[in-house]
Formats: sequence, C-alpha cells, structure tokens
Amino acid sequence: MSAAPDADITVIGNTGDDIHLFGLKVCPDLDTVMYTLGGGIHEEQGWGRAGETFAVKEELAAYGVGPEWFGLGDRDFATHIVRTQMLGAGYPLSAVTEALCARWQPGVRLLPMTDDRVETHVLIDDPEGEGRKAVHFQEYWVRLRASVPAHAVVPVGADQAKPAPGVLEAIADADVVLFPPSNPVVSVGTILAVPGVREAIADAGVPVVGLSPIVGDAPVRGMADKVLTAVGVESTADAVAKHYGSGLLDGWLVDTVDAGVVEEVEAAGIRCRAIPLMMTDLKATAAMAAEALTLAEEVRG
Amino acid sequence: MSAAPDADITVIGNTGDDIHLFGLKVCPDLDTVMYTLGGGIHEEQGWGRAGETFAVKEELAAYGVGPEWFGLGDRDFATHIVRTQMLGAGYPLSAVTEALCARWQPGVRLLPMTDDRVETHVLIDDPEGEGRKAVHFQEYWVRLRASVPAHAVVPVGADQAKPAPGVLEAIADADVVLFPPSNPVVSVGTILAVPGVREAIADAGVPVVGLSPIVGDAPVRGMADKVLTAVGVESTADAVAKHYGSGLLDGWLVDTVDAGVVEEVEAAGIRCRAIPLMMTDLKATAAMAAEALTLAEEVRG
Repeated sequence: MSAAPDADITVIGNTGDDIHLFGLKVCPDLDTVMYTLGGGIHEEQGWGRAGETFAVKEELAAYGVGPEWFGLGDRDFATHIVRTQMLGAGYPLSAVTEALCARWQPGVRLLPMTDDRVETHVLIDDPEGEGRKAVHFQEYWVRLRASVPAHAVVPVGADQAKPAPGVLEAIADADVVLFPPSNPVVSVGTILAVPGVREAIADAGVPVVGLSPIVGDAPVRGMADKVLTAVGVESTADAVAKHYGSGLLDGWLVDTVDAGVVEEVEAAGIRCRAIPLMMTDLKATAAMAAEALTLAEEVRG
Repeated sequence: MSAAPDADITVIGNTGDDIHLFGLKVCPDLDTVMYTLGGGIHEEQGWGRAGETFAVKEELAAYGVGPEWFGLGDRDFATHIVRTQMLGAGYPLSAVTEALCARWQPGVRLLPMTDDRVETHVLIDDPEGEGRKAVHFQEYWVRLRASVPAHAVVPVGADQAKPAPGVLEAIADADVVLFPPSNPVVSVGTILAVPGVREAIADAGVPVVGLSPIVGDAPVRGMADKVLTAVGVESTADAVAKHYGSGLLDGWLVDTVDAGVVEEVEAAGIRCRAIPLMMTDLKATAAMAAEALTLAEEVRG
C-alpha cells in the first residue's frame, strides 16, 4: 500500500488452512492479513493478536478439550466466535470477512478465495505407527512442525469450489497481479487450485509478477521447503518460478543472493530481477512492492 | 450435602433461562449450580467464575457484536464453547452437563430438566414504545433489571418438552424432594411446567418440602417479587406456599420473621415451620437443609 498509496488493492486469501477448532471456524491466513494490515497483529510472532491472554485456552485444557497445540488467545477467540456466529446465521465467508474488516480497516479489499469449504490435507508418514496417513494441514504444520516426511498435499474440496464473489472480477479488472512471497504450495497453490482462478489470471492480459519465497535455498519464513519437496519442487528461487511457469508468471523477483539464477529464470521465459527481498521493516517491504510494480511495467512494455 | 453427607443427591436444573449468545449456548442455572458446588463460582456475585477477565467480551464489543448487557467472562466463555461444540456434535444437554461436571465434581448429579429447547419469555410493557412485547427472560431480567411491568411469564416450548433422561427416575427413587428457595415462577415453576415432572413428584409418595424464597415480604435474592406479580401471586412466604399448593407440597419452611404465617400455611394443608432462612454462610445453609430434612421426616410420620 505504501508502494502504491492510491491503488485499489484486492487481496485474495487462502482458506485451505482454515480449520474448525472447538466448534469455531478459524481462518489463519485471512486473519493474518486482516490483523497485519489493520494493526492488530502480534508482530514478532507473525500471527495472532498483540497483547494476548490465554484464559479460554487454559479453561478448555482444564475441561480436557483439545487440541492444545493450536495457540488461540482470548482476543483471537472473539474473532472466531463472531465469524462462526455469522456463518451459522447463513452469511458466506466473504460477507463475514467483509464484516470483520469493517472493524480492522486493512486498507485493502480482503476476499477469501472461495466461500466453499476447502481443506488442505497432507499425506505424511504416520508418526505414531506404520504407514502413511492424511492429516489436516494445521496438524502437519503446527502440531508436527513439518517434522515428518510429507508425500502429497491435497486441497480437499478445491476441485468443487467456486471462486468467492468478486474474486474473478478483481482479477479481470486488475492492472497488475502480484504473487506474494508466500508458500507456493499451500498458500498460492491452493488459491490457484480453485477452478477458474488460474484461467482468470492468464486471461486478464496484465503483468503477473511474483516475489520469491525462497532466499538462498531456504524459505524466508516458515517451512515452505518441506511442502515443496512433497510436490517435487526444489527449494530454490528459480525452481519455484518454473513451478508457477511462464504460462502464468511474467516476472519474478529474487533476492540479491540469488542473482545467479536470474539468467535461468529468464531462459524459462520469465523476466527476472534480483533485489533485496527480506521484509525487515515496512520500508524494505514497500521497496519490494515498488520493485514488483516496476517489473510489471517493464513486462507490460 | 453437609446436611446429609452420605446422601445421593440429584439436582434438577432449570433450563428455561438458557440463551444463545454469540452463537454459543449459555445455561446460567446449570452453570451456577456446577460452579457453586464445584468451587469455581464468583462468590460475591453469585454467578459466573471467580477471577474472571473480559478480553473476549471487549473484543466482541469492538466488533460491534452484542449484546453487551450479558457479562460473560473469558473463563465462562470456555464452558459455553465446550457445551456448544458438544451439542453441535449431537450430544444432548444432559450428556454435555455430565461431561462438564466431570471436571467440576459438584458432588451431586446435575440434570437439566429437559434436553429439549425451552425458553422463558416475559410479556412486558415495551420500554421503547407503545404496547407490549415478549422478550427472552434474560433480556427482562439482566438487561432491563426487571424494571418494567411484566404481565405474563411463558416457558415457550415447555409443553412439548420431555424430561431429560434420569429426571423422572430420580424423582421416583427419591426419599425426599426438596424445593430450594429459588424463584418459584421462572426457576422451580419452569421445571414443574415440563410435562410429567409435577405428576412424578406427586406420585413419588415421599415428603416434598420447600424453602421460602420470600423473607419478610421480599425476595431473599434477586427480583422474584416482579415475576410473582406477573402470575398474580403475592410476594409473601405463605402466598408462595399456596401457589405451589398442598397437592404438591407437604412441608414449607419460612423465616423466623414470617412466623406469623405458619398457621395460615398449615390451614392450607401444608406443614410449616419458621426457622432462620438466610444463607449467610455454609453452616447456616447446611442448617436450613437439615431443618428441611427434619420437616420431611415429620411429614413422613
């Protein structure tokens, strides 16, 4: 937003890692965007609310009700309570998200990729036994800390999902489409798995520019390398670009430490620039966004 | 329990003042019994949990989600979250209550009067306009502090409700049935409105003894006089006894300040004693229970 203060920005959020906990609908990705842009995020942690207390979680544990591995704070609970109540009253997730954002004023239009239920499951080696089993992404990611081999990532329900109201329209009306340096498999990949989204991006006829989530052969944040392995993609800045492919991606930003891959990415038909890609502060992040827009204009030619 | 430490006690709780708040099922009477006997009650307040914080409530208010007049604390929220999740999973309220009591160990068997939905509504003078309207009991009691004239009290759904599993059996197996000094209209009265309960008490063939909730022409606690007026009963210790009637009640305890009504109650066919009836501490409360059991034995003859 700092890079283009007058722009109308729509953020399409992944809902594949949504989960029902304690009977409440939790949307980690939507909430992280909402809290971050709305000024309520726990900055160091990168998710959840600042200044949290944990009375509800402690009480649930006293009742023996789990899971205990998902750290919901009291303030965060309120968001999930409001969301669950509205969903129960019949509002689609997109309308609920809009209502929640009315408080947070994130400065962008935040849309869930779909109002339909999609749940990313991960096929893992069963940590408690022989063989493999499929677990909810959050169980793999948060409970197991991605510490067991993952063999497949399946966005269950995505093939039947419809893009939420406004998603295809936002893409069709866009001047530029940006892929953030998010997880290419379980975040961006899940959004692209909703039928119609990938096609809409390709048909929009506007520059599509991505920022590499891999810097120096390791994910900037999180454990993206684990799920990249599961889908057979190397954890390198160029492999991720080629995973998206030139059919989708027009431009790609890699970090200066990965300047060596620029030529290879360009050989794959994707314009590539090496710039500092660490979101150390707001200024650095705005500079990255500005570079992405510059690259988009280059592509547009 | 102190008055009869070896007794198996079943408490049948009113569920007519249950309410859905923020999409969660709240059972004030069941929880008050559970928290009180389980050692978690806010002693001075007489409801809710001790040591509460209010982060969730503050956040809900920040979302503009009400009602704000019902003071749920963070700890209390956890109880309602567990209950709502279990109900959503298909467990009846009686099973949910048993599960919650597994933590609290109240020392009695706590049963909801019914697993079916019953909601006590109160017909009031509309505080914001002309005419009358029906509101949920909690709105009348908590929001309006019973400050507007009430014309009728209707336990909506009670006529279709079935006693919860164990209720009729507990009454049939009882040696004594006690009516606590609770609200005779919206607490005890609602339980009696569930078809089969009143008959089971009459058919049990055991002493039925009540404790007056009115001391010196005023309710001991709360605003019972308001709803007594609504059903055409005077707020006196003898009027409440006659409201229950000799067909139901065998014995009645009034406070010493109401010793003057003993004769009149006995003339109505209900054995009556005047004893100190203020539950000032555990010892005084145990003495009241002991007197009730003594009166029951007198009645049994």
